[in-house]
Amino acid sequence: MSNLTEQKCEACRVGAPIATAEEKETYLSIIPKWMLITEDGMEKLQRDFSFKNFKEALDFTNKIGMIAEDEGHHPDITTRYGSVSVVWYTHKINGLHLNDFIMAAKTDQIP
Amino acid sequence: MSNLTEQKCEACRVGAPIATAEEKETYLSIIPKWMLITEDGMEKLQRDFSFKNFKEALDFTNKIGMIAEDEGHHPDITTRYGSVSVVWYTHKINGLHLNDFIMAAKTDQIP
Repeated sequence: MSNLTEQKCEACRVGAPIATAEEKETYLSIIPKWMLITEDGMEKLQRDFSFKNFKEALDFTNKIGMIAEDEGHHPDITTRYGSVSVVWYTHKINGLHLNDFIMAAKTDQIP
Repeated sequence: MSNLTEQKCEACRVGAPIATAEEKETYLSIIPKWMLITEDGMEKLQRDFSFKNFKEALDFTNKIGMIAEDEGHHPDITTRYGSVSVVWYTHKINGLHLNDFIMAAKTDQIP
């Protein structure tokens, strides 16, 4: 399971299984820069990235947008002067699916 | 003061005057779709915009990025599948400056 970035997002339907506690622990050890947060009663993955200015932050946001469109799975992205916060979760299951860990790992690989 | 969109942002320095209660009331009446929120102890202006999908939301984010770069004043923008939240405030004065109302009005005019 260490090859998160080599995997593709599966279509995620209502009722698809939420990641178990054991799975979450395993996946998180592969993407240690991501925090497990709870927002609106849902578990989510968050990482904040720093940049020199607004333009660099927005460029990064657009790169995330490209991988999100490629995989058909979309995060919440907050773009600010000098930083971008990325939050992955699966709305349809009110929580975290393997897809979210895959996308977090792919986000880490954006140059 | 109804011509917010015809004004340019002034360079905003530490110590520049925060908008007074009366000014805020006047400006807000010109941009009624914006909410006054308090976040991290700072007053801010927020408006949420709806879109059909992620791509349209990200396109809008990029348009805001263009006016922000033009004026040298930058918001926090949260891009999600189907919506964009825009938050204007002036970090250097821990609150709202006329610039923020100008930028909110210009955001409303984005086609």
